Amino acid sequence: MPQYDILAMGNAIVDVISSETPDFLSSRGIQHGCMRLIDATEAEALYGAMGPGREISGGSAANSVVGAAALGARTAFVGRVASDQLGQVFTHDIRAAGVHFATAPASGGPPTGRCLIVVTPDGERTMNTYLGACQELDSSDLDAALVAQAGILYLEGYLWDPAAPRAAMQAAIKVAREAGNKVAFTLSDVFCVEGHRGDFRALLESHVDIMFGNENEVKALYQTDDIDAAMAELARHACITVVTRSEKGAVVIGGGHRYEVPGERVAKVVDTTGAGDLFAGGFMAALVQGRSLPDCARIGCISAAEVISHFGARPEADLRTLVASKLD
Amino acid sequence: MPQYDILAMGNAIVDVISSETPDFLSSRGIQHGCMRLIDATEAEALYGAMGPGREISGGSAANSVVGAAALGARTAFVGRVASDQLGQVFTHDIRAAGVHFATAPASGGPPTGRCLIVVTPDGERTMNTYLGACQELDSSDLDAALVAQAGILYLEGYLWDPAAPRAAMQAAIKVAREAGNKVAFTLSDVFCVEGHRGDFRALLESHVDIMFGNENEVKALYQTDDIDAAMAELARHACITVVTRSEKGAVVIGGGHRYEVPGERVAKVVDTTGAGDLFAGGFMAALVQGRSLPDCARIGCISAAEVISHFGARPEADLRTLVASKLD
Repeated sequence: MPQYDILAMGNAIVDVISSETPDFLSSRGIQHGCMRLIDATEAEALYGAMGPGREISGGSAANSVVGAAALGARTAFVGRVASDQLGQVFTHDIRAAGVHFATAPASGGPPTGRCLIVVTPDGERTMNTYLGACQELDSSDLDAALVAQAGILYLEGYLWDPAAPRAAMQAAIKVAREAGNKVAFTLSDVFCVEGHRGDFRALLESHVDIMFGNENEVKALYQTDDIDAAMAELARHACITVVTRSEKGAVVIGGGHRYEVPGERVAKVVDTTGAGDLFAGGFMAALVQGRSLPDCARIGCISAAEVISHFGARPEADLRTLVASKLD
Repeated sequence: MPQYDILAMGNAIVDVISSETPDFLSSRGIQHGCMRLIDATEAEALYGAMGPGREISGGSAANSVVGAAALGARTAFVGRVASDQLGQVFTHDIRAAGVHFATAPASGGPPTGRCLIVVTPDGERTMNTYLGACQELDSSDLDAALVAQAGILYLEGYLWDPAAPRAAMQAAIKVAREAGNKVAFTLSDVFCVEGHRGDFRALLESHVDIMFGNENEVKALYQTDDIDAAMAELARHACITVVTRSEKGAVVIGGGHRYEVPGERVAKVVDTTGAGDLFAGGFMAALVQGRSLPDCARIGCISAAEVISHFGARPEADLRTLVASKLD
């Protein structure tokens, strides 16, 4: 039995969340609902313009393993913070959520990464990410024994962008494969797919057992407007393909079957940040517990619905109780 | 016409808020619902034991002026952060709320102060404050011209504890008095009253125009269990005396009259942090706008009700719209 159910590699980020009008974005030419990378200078300027914030730990794959841990999965995380207060906050929060996290903080170099998240009245989040120390993760941080001891290695597409972390993820895939473990991957965002389409397709061709993406990401991957065609392509490669569809739920293809799962109703969408992350976390936690694929997707939807009902991408309610009340 | 309506002096603190069971407090011998000061070692140990947090700027008088600014008052704040990330967060948030804040950050010395806030399922907050850089505020930070240019100088009792900030507040009172401005003071907490009863009584005797306190603080001030007797004592000194009574609202004594104002109904109390702060902020903002004393207290209650309906001691809703919908 592996020591961990899921080991995630991803950006170690603290979210800085403020509420703004749509004008705040349009007047700056920032596309509503997207994620983009910004440098330190732009981060400072944008932060200066933003209203009062809330700081809540984030990072896509980190959010996923926090969600999975809340559902009872044994989880670990690899990612780089700096030796600073935001790094302490990230480290505290992920450990307090029950996730093993032992990557050494970078000293010197850029500060801990942060994501400046603008939430508009529709609940949509627009993310402006300053990666900072996240990019300092490299292969030397990789504890091969840890990777070998995790049933699923989960990788976020966001972290494919900087070169050193990408090499670390490639090394991790090799270790996981040799140990006979599963590899799961999320496409993360259309901009990641656009930037690394060849790599992502090659990954799917040979290495990935579980693939997560939303409809836009999957369509971008195969450069088509036909979601069914894109999913058919995907299904050729990955053992399990999961496409999230916001309020419409998710589609899962696996074991020769296709399942459509409805979305979970949310009384009021406050902040959509982390919806996809919590979906993936809930899905994987259920999978390692031996649930059926449609149940995995349902639990993903329930987890996502919780996290969009409040500010921040980490669950506030007891996910296990919530899932039990809806499913069992 | 003064440049600012309200200038507050207080602790410059970032709140770290986690949700815990009552056992978390009782097993550590921490009294539910109180505020206590802790040192760096205890802060580290307690933080390590707390669950995942949210970081939201706080500080009692700082919260008050943020609330007053949201209601249209022209406000300024004096308090000390360190040159670190939490100091940047505090500085950003208070300025983004429209409050003038120009106290130089301390370099070297202890880090920015933080308050480890444990919120229990009843919504009550228990505050464990590490003052850090807050204590480094001294008379040299005082911009006498700024103090002279503020209609109301508002002081928090919490900041009376450390010696250097106390001296700075005493100097500020002198400047405000000489400029013919008003001085407002909050008793802050029973522990502050217990530690500085003589000072607080002397302040009331000669210097304070507006005094805020809750029932327990006012009773502690005059060492009596009879709230009416305590309020009669208070009314002898201060021009305006305001006693907050949680969900029961507030009592105001001023101009030879006594007014009782009902509390504002709250659908669900999430986190009581900042209730008294927002009451005082709302009250003073209304006062400088020339509202009647009962209306000032009502606006205080409406502001307090908003802040306890979510995590964090800074308002999330548009207070001006909220007040208009309830009062005008």
